[in-house]
Amino acid sequence: MVVKVYGGAYGSPKRVIACFIEKEIEYDVVHIDLFKGENTTPHYLNLQPFGALPVIQDGDYTLYESRAIIRYYAEKYKSQGTELLGRTVEERGLVEQWLEVEAHNFQPPLYDLVIHVLFDGKEGVIPDEKRIKEDEEKLARVLDVYEQRLSTSKYLAGDSFSLADLSHLPFGHYLVTSLGREYMIRDRKHVSRWWDDISSRPSWKKVLQLHPYVF
Amino acid sequence: MVVKVYGGAYGSPKRVIACFIEKEIEYDVVHIDLFKGENTTPHYLNLQPFGALPVIQDGDYTLYESRAIIRYYAEKYKSQGTELLGRTVEERGLVEQWLEVEAHNFQPPLYDLVIHVLFDGKEGVIPDEKRIKEDEEKLARVLDVYEQRLSTSKYLAGDSFSLADLSHLPFGHYLVTSLGREYMIRDRKHVSRWWDDISSRPSWKKVLQLHPYVF
Repeated sequence: MVVKVYGGAYGSPKRVIACFIEKEIEYDVVHIDLFKGENTTPHYLNLQPFGALPVIQDGDYTLYESRAIIRYYAEKYKSQGTELLGRTVEERGLVEQWLEVEAHNFQPPLYDLVIHVLFDGKEGVIPDEKRIKEDEEKLARVLDVYEQRLSTSKYLAGDSFSLADLSHLPFGHYLVTSLGREYMIRDRKHVSRWWDDISSRPSWKKVLQLHPYVF
Repeated sequence: MVVKVYGGAYGSPKRVIACFIEKEIEYDVVHIDLFKGENTTPHYLNLQPFGALPVIQDGDYTLYESRAIIRYYAEKYKSQGTELLGRTVEERGLVEQWLEVEAHNFQPPLYDLVIHVLFDGKEGVIPDEKRIKEDEEKLARVLDVYEQRLSTSKYLAGDSFSLADLSHLPFGHYLVTSLGREYMIRDRKHVSRWWDDISSRPSWKKVLQLHPYVF
């Protein structure tokens, strides 16, 4: 049974696809065009009632929220492909902690930057410079904590690559590409080393090659 | 070894304490006064570098982010107290999905309401009525999805109480008390039935009795 994942051209579904490649799970992408409102059709809302990406269908099992999906597959295929949840319950605790930090501290200012820098620019809206500056400052403080953590730990949750690291790839990618803010990573020695490590994994390179960003 | 949990008078640490009571885990609360900035001392930042609540210390194991902590203890003590993670990997997947929905859809507009209604009121700031209205509308749309889900499912993730339900208690409580918006629950038959069920659990009653809200 090949898993169907909806919306591979966007950021969050890439979190799921990177996990599938690491875990050697076969998948098919179902294209969704947000600009055409394909996430608000009755069919899509029946799968994902909030109209958000991604959702997966695996036989008759449907699951949404990218970080829930990656946890599910990392646990279901624990002994297949890369171990992504830690080897002990204590290691998994730290994976969970840094997954939450990614979701609540790292992603929000970055997502806001994507909206206010990339979308507003495209739509001809005058960018809200005050808000952009606040987002940059928030993100800088978060990356300062990462710099400290990564000065004593190879990866966020410990000495092995995990879901916690993987989860940073889809939005971290905007920082070093279309947002033009790679310096925020390069100015921090350990963050820079970590980013090079995780973004050069064959799984992430394959995601970028097979499923390019729509913007 | 008794687990220490920091900041029991506030919302998010109550998520952890409710889990401890369900799992029959002994704990001690370390008081933190946010209004005195006790979350920004070098000692606290050494435990939780973002200055957020809660953090736990369990021997030499330190963990932060409330939803990471509850996952850790629900897994570590799987066969003790209430089962909170589902019985199968598929059930756990749905617990994870609804935990993410709570974190990304339910909590943000509610947290914003707490800030703009309760804090602004206290501090003599004129409440931002436009923002309050937007938060209410966002939350109403989320609760409409819950109403649909709970019309066919006893609890959010299935037929058993889980972390997904528990995680709604600390901020849902504001809705029916100091925010004065209990009607948002009562106007929805199935949400109302679910809220009565989860908020009348002995664990939550004990949390409220032992660790009253500071505001």
